[in-house]
Amino acid sequence: MVEHDAEREAGRAFLPKFDSAGLLVAVAQDADSGEVLMIAFMDQEALEATRRTGFAHFHSRSRGRLWKKGESSGHVLAVEAILVDCDQDALVLKVRPAGPACHTGARSCFYRALDGESLIRIES
Amino acid sequence: MVEHDAEREAGRAFLPKFDSAGLLVAVAQDADSGEVLMIAFMDQEALEATRRTGFAHFHSRSRGRLWKKGESSGHVLAVEAILVDCDQDALVLKVRPAGPACHTGARSCFYRALDGESLIRIES
Repeated sequence: MVEHDAEREAGRAFLPKFDSAGLLVAVAQDADSGEVLMIAFMDQEALEATRRTGFAHFHSRSRGRLWKKGESSGHVLAVEAILVDCDQDALVLKVRPAGPACHTGARSCFYRALDGESLIRIES
Repeated sequence: MVEHDAEREAGRAFLPKFDSAGLLVAVAQDADSGEVLMIAFMDQEALEATRRTGFAHFHSRSRGRLWKKGESSGHVLAVEAILVDCDQDALVLKVRPAGPACHTGARSCFYRALDGESLIRIES
Protein backbone atom coordinates (compact mmCIF):
# COMPACT_ATOMS: atom_id res chain seq x y z
CA MET A 1 0.00 0.00 0.00
CA VAL A 2 2.67 2.45 1.07
CA GLU A 3 4.95 1.29 -1.74
CA HIS A 4 2.14 1.73 -4.20
CA ASP A 5 1.58 5.26 -2.92
CA ALA A 6 5.28 6.07 -3.28
CA GLU A 7 5.23 4.68 -6.80
CA ARG A 8 2.18 6.78 -7.54
CA GLU A 9 3.95 9.94 -6.44
CA ALA A 10 7.44 9.48 -7.77
CA GLY A 11 7.17 6.96 -10.54
CA ARG A 12 6.60 7.11 -14.25
CA ALA A 13 3.69 4.67 -14.18
CA PHE A 14 0.20 6.03 -14.80
CA LEU A 15 -1.85 4.48 -12.00
CA PRO A 16 -5.05 6.52 -11.84
CA LYS A 17 -6.68 6.27 -8.44
CA PHE A 18 -10.45 6.17 -8.64
CA ASP A 19 -12.44 6.78 -5.46
CA SER A 20 -14.97 4.42 -3.90
CA ALA A 21 -17.51 5.50 -6.54
CA GLY A 22 -15.02 4.73 -9.32
CA LEU A 23 -14.40 8.40 -10.10
CA LEU A 24 -11.63 10.94 -10.18
CA VAL A 25 -11.85 14.70 -10.60
CA ALA A 26 -10.92 16.34 -13.89
CA VAL A 27 -10.43 20.06 -14.38
CA ALA A 28 -10.60 21.46 -17.91
CA GLN A 29 -8.26 24.43 -18.24
CA ASP A 30 -7.93 26.57 -21.34
CA ALA A 31 -4.54 25.70 -22.84
CA ASP A 32 -3.96 29.29 -23.91
CA SER A 33 -5.46 31.54 -21.25
CA GLY A 34 -5.11 29.22 -18.27
CA GLU A 35 -8.74 29.89 -17.35
CA VAL A 36 -10.47 27.06 -15.54
CA LEU A 37 -13.44 26.22 -17.76
CA MET A 38 -15.22 23.41 -15.93
CA ILE A 39 -14.82 20.63 -13.42
CA ALA A 40 -16.30 17.18 -13.85
CA PHE A 41 -15.74 13.56 -12.96
CA MET A 42 -14.23 10.72 -14.95
CA ASP A 43 -14.54 7.02 -14.49
CA GLN A 44 -12.29 4.51 -16.25
CA GLU A 45 -14.53 4.55 -19.33
CA ALA A 46 -14.46 8.35 -19.63
CA LEU A 47 -10.71 8.44 -19.17
CA GLU A 48 -10.20 5.81 -21.85
CA ALA A 49 -12.57 7.59 -24.25
CA THR A 50 -10.73 10.88 -23.67
CA ARG A 51 -7.34 9.33 -24.31
CA ARG A 52 -8.53 7.39 -27.34
CA THR A 53 -10.35 10.24 -29.08
CA GLY A 54 -8.46 13.34 -27.89
CA PHE A 55 -11.73 14.95 -26.81
CA ALA A 56 -12.87 15.36 -23.21
CA HIS A 57 -15.34 12.77 -21.98
CA PHE A 58 -16.76 12.65 -18.49
CA HIS A 59 -19.02 10.52 -16.34
CA SER A 60 -22.31 12.17 -15.45
CA ARG A 61 -23.13 11.43 -11.84
CA SER A 62 -26.72 12.59 -12.27
CA ARG A 63 -27.38 10.66 -15.47
CA GLY A 64 -25.12 7.74 -14.58
CA ARG A 65 -23.53 7.56 -18.00
CA LEU A 66 -20.61 8.51 -20.19
CA TRP A 67 -20.91 11.85 -21.95
CA LYS A 68 -18.71 13.52 -24.47
CA LYS A 69 -18.50 17.20 -23.62
CA GLY A 70 -20.23 19.01 -26.48
CA GLU A 71 -22.05 15.93 -27.77
CA SER A 72 -25.21 17.97 -28.25
CA SER A 73 -23.91 21.57 -28.38
CA GLY A 74 -20.89 20.87 -30.55
CA HIS A 75 -18.77 22.73 -28.00
CA VAL A 76 -16.21 20.00 -27.64
CA LEU A 77 -12.93 20.29 -25.76
CA ALA A 78 -9.87 19.14 -27.70
CA VAL A 79 -7.36 17.83 -25.18
CA GLU A 80 -3.79 19.06 -25.67
CA ALA A 81 -2.30 17.53 -22.54
CA ILE A 82 -3.30 15.61 -19.44
CA LEU A 83 -1.57 16.54 -16.19
CA VAL A 84 -1.66 14.14 -13.25
CA ASP A 85 -1.41 15.08 -9.59
CA CYS A 86 0.82 13.59 -6.90
CA ASP A 87 -1.53 10.85 -5.74
CA GLN A 88 -3.06 10.39 -9.19
CA ASP A 89 -6.65 10.97 -8.14
CA ALA A 90 -7.09 14.23 -10.07
CA LEU A 91 -6.34 15.39 -13.59
CA VAL A 92 -5.94 18.71 -15.34
CA LEU A 93 -6.94 18.63 -18.99
CA LYS A 94 -5.28 21.36 -21.02
CA VAL A 95 -7.91 22.01 -23.66
CA ARG A 96 -8.86 24.05 -26.70
CA PRO A 97 -12.59 24.71 -26.52
CA ALA A 98 -14.71 24.78 -29.70
CA GLY A 99 -17.15 27.19 -28.05
CA PRO A 100 -18.45 28.23 -24.65
CA ALA A 101 -17.62 25.52 -22.14
CA CYS A 102 -20.67 26.21 -20.00
CA HIS A 103 -24.16 25.06 -20.95
CA THR A 104 -25.36 28.57 -19.97
CA GLY A 105 -23.37 30.03 -22.85
CA ALA A 106 -20.62 31.44 -20.67
CA ARG A 107 -17.04 30.86 -21.75
CA SER A 108 -16.33 29.21 -18.39
CA CYS A 109 -18.66 27.64 -15.85
CA PHE A 110 -16.93 29.89 -13.29
CA TYR A 111 -18.61 33.12 -14.37
CA ARG A 112 -19.38 34.33 -10.84
CA ALA A 113 -17.34 35.21 -7.78
CA LEU A 114 -18.34 35.29 -4.17
CA ASP A 115 -18.69 38.86 -2.92
CA GLY A 116 -19.61 38.88 0.73
CA GLU A 117 -22.78 36.86 0.97
CA SER A 118 -23.76 37.02 -2.68
CA LEU A 119 -22.42 36.31 -6.13
CA ILE A 120 -21.28 38.79 -8.73
CA ARG A 121 -20.89 38.09 -12.39
CA ILE A 122 -17.28 38.33 -13.57
CA GLU A 123 -17.81 37.26 -17.17
CA SER A 124 -20.42 38.69 -19.48
CA MET B 1 -36.18 21.54 -7.59
CA VAL B 2 -36.02 22.94 -11.10
CA GLU B 3 -36.57 26.46 -9.80
CA HIS B 4 -33.83 25.99 -7.27
CA ASP B 5 -31.49 24.86 -10.06
CA ALA B 6 -32.37 27.94 -12.13
CA GLU B 7 -31.75 30.15 -9.11
CA ARG B 8 -28.41 28.41 -8.61
CA GLU B 9 -27.35 29.18 -12.17
CA ALA B 10 -28.62 32.66 -12.71
CA GLY B 11 -29.10 34.17 -9.29
CA ARG B 12 -26.96 36.16 -6.93
CA ALA B 13 -27.55 33.81 -4.00
CA PHE B 14 -24.67 31.63 -2.87
CA LEU B 15 -26.27 28.19 -2.55
CA PRO B 16 -23.37 25.73 -2.45
CA LYS B 17 -24.44 22.27 -3.54
CA PHE B 18 -22.74 19.53 -1.58
CA ASP B 19 -22.90 15.99 -2.92
CA SER B 20 -24.30 12.95 -1.10
CA ALA B 21 -21.11 12.78 0.97
CA GLY B 22 -21.48 16.44 1.92
CA LEU B 23 -18.60 17.57 -0.28
CA LEU B 24 -17.86 19.84 -3.19
CA VAL B 25 -14.70 20.09 -5.28
CA ALA B 26 -12.33 23.01 -4.82
CA VAL B 27 -9.48 23.85 -7.19
CA ALA B 28 -6.67 26.07 -5.94
CA GLN B 29 -5.31 28.18 -8.77
CA ASP B 30 -2.35 30.54 -8.47
CA ALA B 31 -3.82 34.05 -8.63
CA ASP B 32 -0.85 35.35 -10.60
CA SER B 33 0.27 32.56 -12.92
CA GLY B 34 -3.06 30.79 -13.34
CA GLU B 35 -1.36 27.47 -12.61
CA VAL B 36 -3.61 24.86 -11.03
CA LEU B 37 -1.87 24.02 -7.76
CA MET B 38 -4.06 21.37 -6.18
CA ILE B 39 -7.54 19.92 -6.05
CA ALA B 40 -9.28 18.93 -2.86
CA PHE B 41 -12.71 18.64 -1.29
CA MET B 42 -14.61 20.95 1.01
CA ASP B 43 -17.50 20.27 3.31
CA GLN B 44 -19.56 23.02 4.91
CA GLU B 45 -17.09 23.32 7.78
CA ALA B 46 -14.09 23.73 5.45
CA LEU B 47 -15.90 26.27 3.34
CA GLU B 48 -16.84 28.31 6.39
CA ALA B 49 -13.30 28.14 7.79
CA THR B 50 -11.91 29.28 4.44
CA ARG B 51 -14.30 32.22 4.22
CA ARG B 52 -13.79 33.21 7.85
CA THR B 53 -9.98 33.07 7.88
CA GLY B 54 -9.05 33.85 4.26
CA PHE B 55 -6.88 30.73 4.13
CA ALA B 56 -7.77 27.54 2.26
CA HIS B 57 -9.22 24.77 4.39
CA PHE B 58 -10.33 21.41 3.06
CA HIS B 59 -11.95 18.22 4.24
CA SER B 60 -9.66 15.23 4.18
CA ARG B 61 -11.55 12.23 2.91
CA SER B 62 -8.85 9.82 4.10
CA ARG B 63 -8.52 11.32 7.58
CA GLY B 64 -12.15 12.32 7.86
CA ARG B 65 -11.40 15.74 9.27
CA LEU B 66 -10.94 19.43 8.56
CA TRP B 67 -7.44 20.49 7.60
CA LYS B 68 -5.95 23.85 6.97
CA LYS B 69 -3.67 23.61 3.97
CA GLY B 70 -0.17 24.23 5.31
CA GLU B 71 -1.08 23.57 8.93
CA SER B 72 2.11 21.57 9.39
CA SER B 73 4.31 22.77 6.51
CA GLY B 74 3.48 26.45 6.81
CA HIS B 75 2.73 26.48 3.10
CA VAL B 76 -0.65 28.07 3.45
CA LEU B 77 -2.80 29.36 0.60
CA ALA B 78 -4.12 32.89 1.04
CA VAL B 79 -7.43 33.11 -0.79
CA GLU B 80 -7.87 36.19 -2.99
CA ALA B 81 -11.15 35.21 -4.56
CA ILE B 82 -13.65 32.37 -4.67
CA LEU B 83 -15.25 31.60 -8.03
CA VAL B 84 -18.43 29.52 -8.17
CA ASP B 85 -19.56 27.37 -11.07
CA CYS B 86 -22.96 27.26 -12.77
CA ASP B 87 -24.54 24.61 -10.56
CA GLN B 88 -22.58 25.69 -7.47
CA ASP B 89 -21.02 22.30 -6.79
CA ALA B 90 -17.44 23.34 -7.55
CA LEU B 91 -15.23 26.26 -6.56
CA VAL B 92 -12.05 27.83 -7.88
CA LEU B 93 -9.94 29.44 -5.18
CA LYS B 94 -7.64 32.13 -6.54
CA VAL B 95 -4.73 31.88 -4.14
CA ARG B 96 -1.32 33.22 -3.23
CA PRO B 97 0.76 30.29 -1.99
CA ALA B 98 3.27 30.75 0.87
CA GLY B 99 5.41 27.93 -0.52
CA PRO B 100 5.18 24.79 -2.60
CA ALA B 101 1.55 23.67 -2.73
CA CYS B 102 2.42 19.98 -3.00
CA HIS B 103 3.56 17.92 -0.03
CA THR B 104 6.28 16.50 -2.32
CA GLY B 105 7.87 19.96 -2.49
CA ALA B 106 6.69 20.66 -6.02
CA ARG B 107 5.15 24.06 -6.70
CA SER B 108 1.99 22.36 -7.96
CA CYS B 109 0.65 18.87 -7.35
CA PHE B 110 0.37 18.61 -11.15
CA TYR B 111 4.08 18.16 -11.81
CA ARG B 112 3.67 15.35 -14.32
CA ALA B 113 1.99 14.94 -17.68
CA LEU B 114 0.78 11.83 -19.40
CA ASP B 115 3.05 10.92 -22.29
CA GLY B 116 1.76 7.85 -24.07
CA GLU B 117 1.51 5.18 -21.38
CA SER B 118 3.80 6.82 -18.86
CA LEU B 119 4.30 10.07 -16.97
CA ILE B 120 6.91 12.71 -17.59
CA ARG B 121 7.95 15.37 -15.13
CA ILE B 122 7.07 18.87 -16.30
CA GLU B 123 8.21 20.78 -13.21
CA SER B 124 11.63 20.38 -11.58
